[in-house]
Amino acid sequence: MDSGDSLRAKFMEFPYASTQQRNLMVELLSSVETRLGPSLQSCTLPPDVQHFRNPTDTAHASLHLRSGLPSSQIDFILGGWIHCKLPSGGALNITSLSAYLKSSTDAPHFLLELIQSNPKSLVLILDLTPRKDLILYPDYLKTYYEDTQLDKHRQRLHMLPEVKPYFSPSLYIRAVVSPIAILVNIDVGDEEEANVEEIIRDHVGPVAKELLQFWLEECACLERGVGESEKGCLAGRDRIMKNKTIEVDLGSSFPRLFGGEVADRVLGVLKEYYNT
Amino acid sequence: MDSGDSLRAKFMEFPYASTQQRNLMVELLSSVETRLGPSLQSCTLPPDVQHFRNPTDTAHASLHLRSGLPSSQIDFILGGWIHCKLPSGGALNITSLSAYLKSSTDAPHFLLELIQSNPKSLVLILDLTPRKDLILYPDYLKTYYEDTQLDKHRQRLHMLPEVKPYFSPSLYIRAVVSPIAILVNIDVGDEEEANVEEIIRDHVGPVAKELLQFWLEECACLERGVGESEKGCLAGRDRIMKNKTIEVDLGSSFPRLFGGEVADRVLGVLKEYYNT
Repeated sequence: MDSGDSLRAKFMEFPYASTQQRNLMVELLSSVETRLGPSLQSCTLPPDVQHFRNPTDTAHASLHLRSGLPSSQIDFILGGWIHCKLPSGGALNITSLSAYLKSSTDAPHFLLELIQSNPKSLVLILDLTPRKDLILYPDYLKTYYEDTQLDKHRQRLHMLPEVKPYFSPSLYIRAVVSPIAILVNIDVGDEEEANVEEIIRDHVGPVAKELLQFWLEECACLERGVGESEKGCLAGRDRIMKNKTIEVDLGSSFPRLFGGEVADRVLGVLKEYYNT
Repeated sequence: MDSGDSLRAKFMEFPYASTQQRNLMVELLSSVETRLGPSLQSCTLPPDVQHFRNPTDTAHASLHLRSGLPSSQIDFILGGWIHCKLPSGGALNITSLSAYLKSSTDAPHFLLELIQSNPKSLVLILDLTPRKDLILYPDYLKTYYEDTQLDKHRQRLHMLPEVKPYFSPSLYIRAVVSPIAILVNIDVGDEEEANVEEIIRDHVGPVAKELLQFWLEECACLERGVGESEKGCLAGRDRIMKNKTIEVDLGSSFPRLFGGEVADRVLGVLKEYYNT
């Protein structure tokens, strides 16, 4: 049986990701572990949820989940990768990092997803997900999104000719993200000069690292003094958000990619963490 | 002194809008008046708020506001146009129609704005603005935005090569709109074949009319049985939303366009309607 360390090492290999996508994910995860490590438990997912594949061996995936210690503001950090051979001959490769905070703070969660279904294009979803209705709480909008000028990162990426806005087919995903969310499709087409790897290294990487750094310092590690009744509201909204995110993001694709049995096992375990 | 009828007639002239923009606005306003007329009071804005201009006569505007009768679900309907000569020689022309509902229903408000700063391009903002936090109320998202398949209208416009997503510089505007909101910049560039007028007539118009029709039938005229405590929540959220919308949309531009005195007078009167 694999030890925790070897399972983590296998996860951190990102064996199917492109070089730049792998480098970026390893760097982001290392930043999280360096800054938050002392506040996190080791991964307690069962080994067959840390690594799994479909019966026909065309789809592999790995998840790494570390819950926050009781004294910390971190609910959990979840990293993951999914690889799936496509009937067309190519492959779908997804890498992701999401980080949820407890209701002892109302600071935004962190969300990163890189979806690559061919070497010429990449979908990037990168956001600090709000914990409150931004209309009812304009001060929250001001504190985390306006005063911080985080929109400059989105603007920076949109200046590249290869970058187009990405509209998620899920209206829920469009609704859950913040107004500074980066949802883009990077498509280099048949141009020889530009390539996705360079764009990840020179543009996506720096933006993702800056947003993560902001999240680590200003969201995860700053105390906010949330009152008891507000904690209840945050916890309730977070519970709905997390369950809906699993349903929309993984619940719809996992049975198709990994078959019903594997999907049920993995989603069943994740839902326990999402609902504690 | 102008009578109500002649002030309304002057408003409905849309004297600075392009032919197609004027035709569309008149058609939309006529639809509203035909369907909701018996539920609406006449415009009670003071004449100098129904029509006003800046001291140097380079900016003209007209507003037409009709409140709902006490028995109706309509809070008020506000139509408007703004014309402002630009130092560059051109002109800025904005036409808008917004429709707010009372807290006796939780159905979305209606929002349309057409912003033309040169003959080659047009910004369109068209939405059914949600009344509730779509994360906390997933059934609301489903009822008004998913099951209705309203996103098809946005998709239809995005198929046109001249249509690009528009990102409002205001994060509040990005946050207040729904996930099916149409925020686009229509830019025909130097092409001879396409022109903005044809796109308004053939594409913007049909989409705006369909969304307004949906709003009239399924939002304004359908009863929803909202409980007393929910009414309080809706009224509170609406109050914040309306005041913030005035602040962001008009409060920032009116002093610049019309001078402080005119802006104060007009915004002062509007705020009374927005806060009853």
